[in-house]
Amino acid sequence: MNWIAVEHGKSQMRAWLIRDGKASAPAIGENTGSAAQDLSEHALIQLIGDWLGPRPTLVLISGKTKTPERPVPTAPIDLTPVKMPTTDARVLAYGLPGLSQSTPPDLMYSDATRIAGFLTLNQGWDGVVCQPGPHTSWALISAGEVVSFQSFLTADMANLLTRQFSLEDITHQTDWTIQTYARALDDVLARPERLATALNVLRIGDPVQDLPKAEAQARLWGALVGAELAAARPYWLGQQLAVIAPKALSAPYLQAFRHQGVPVTIADAERMTLAGITAARKRMA
Amino acid sequence: MNWIAVEHGKSQMRAWLIRDGKASAPAIGENTGSAAQDLSEHALIQLIGDWLGPRPTLVLISGKTKTPERPVPTAPIDLTPVKMPTTDARVLAYGLPGLSQSTPPDLMYSDATRIAGFLTLNQGWDGVVCQPGPHTSWALISAGEVVSFQSFLTADMANLLTRQFSLEDITHQTDWTIQTYARALDDVLARPERLATALNVLRIGDPVQDLPKAEAQARLWGALVGAELAAARPYWLGQQLAVIAPKALSAPYLQAFRHQGVPVTIADAERMTLAGITAARKRMA
Repeated sequence: MNWIAVEHGKSQMRAWLIRDGKASAPAIGENTGSAAQDLSEHALIQLIGDWLGPRPTLVLISGKTKTPERPVPTAPIDLTPVKMPTTDARVLAYGLPGLSQSTPPDLMYSDATRIAGFLTLNQGWDGVVCQPGPHTSWALISAGEVVSFQSFLTADMANLLTRQFSLEDITHQTDWTIQTYARALDDVLARPERLATALNVLRIGDPVQDLPKAEAQARLWGALVGAELAAARPYWLGQQLAVIAPKALSAPYLQAFRHQGVPVTIADAERMTLAGITAARKRMA
Repeated sequence: MNWIAVEHGKSQMRAWLIRDGKASAPAIGENTGSAAQDLSEHALIQLIGDWLGPRPTLVLISGKTKTPERPVPTAPIDLTPVKMPTTDARVLAYGLPGLSQSTPPDLMYSDATRIAGFLTLNQGWDGVVCQPGPHTSWALISAGEVVSFQSFLTADMANLLTRQFSLEDITHQTDWTIQTYARALDDVLARPERLATALNVLRIGDPVQDLPKAEAQARLWGALVGAELAAARPYWLGQQLAVIAPKALSAPYLQAFRHQGVPVTIADAERMTLAGITAARKRMA
């Protein structure tokens, strides 16, 4: 029977129609939910309405919904979908629970689904899963459980400071000099308190240094990823590492790991999302 | 003879008419200069036009102008005003040079004028001058010279993150719990890499912790000032410290120094600006 997989992100929703176990190309819509980033049923129906028939269609939703989070340690593969009330009778909606952590306080939603997908495709895998994104998450996996995790605002900060310093928004490795990026990264990774100096130099920018914009971006990302790697050191040092990401956001991280000599397994974000939601669907059958 | 003192800030200009050595109440105007924060002659004339007569009036301008900066070490008291071209013949404008530093690259403008004012009023003073503001500066003073200095984006970051996290903009010590502020400060000062965690907790905010907004602000400022104090430690640890600031921006810093048991001398920002510009005026006579 046909069903629908949905990833509900902060600013975007993606949906796939699953027919005979095969996923369609994704339908992509803006999330027009409230400031609290709650799921908007209206936006959901707009996105998947064409796929709905007279009888209720099962819709599995990954991402932040009203579904209560489960505290870690928890096996993502055990996150059973929870029935969500809807006003549209053509939809039988279930939310996939996210994960919560009390010390330090943290939350993850779609990232937990992708970890479930990754562990479904890589059974028995232990190590750390890093998911670059608007908020990058690091999760320690042992015996199928997320033991602990930590999120970082690196991309958020890079975007805020790019606007603040009037830099151009170029985050692709082809546009900047790897040497400049690596130097900024090494500097802040070795002495995290130098982040302040690095950011101040970008603020004063041209008058002192006549800094080309691509070089300024390389320095900004180098300094911010350096600070993240310094704080996340227990997560990557000596660990088996997997990176799940869309390409654009993972580039600075992959450069950093290559530069540090840390070997990584790379997994595609969309594929992991679908594998995670599909695994949850199977547990419901 | 009457003359005019001007402080040209990033977003605001202030001017005082000096008559018989006494300053008027300041005229305050918006700086409508270009994105590069260059001085706009138009905005200047709008602000001081009423004070101009048929004969040219001397106008001394502190802040970022086209006047070249002087490299440190330099005695701020030796910063001689430099003639600036103007199209309005009623104005005889001079810019006070700022200070530049090559390692790490940094620049200061009005802060240098205020240090000159402070040293004029406190001759022979050695120590560190901290100037909280949109960009906080720390300057090491020895034998009348600024030996080195460092700027921090703490208030800029606090403002960016206040908007990003939809917190209310309350930076006054009366609105927040000193315990919350001090705990966040101590935590990041002791382990600067915890800044990332502190900011992430503010991002997820209410869902996990049901954090009141004033407490969230106390944590945000505590974490950011903690990171600044960690990076600026050589500037304040065991040094004689003077804080020059308008009250609103200095409150979190004064709380921090009190909490750390660091004694400080407090000097009023406007008074130091006027003393600095007046001292420069006297050197021209």
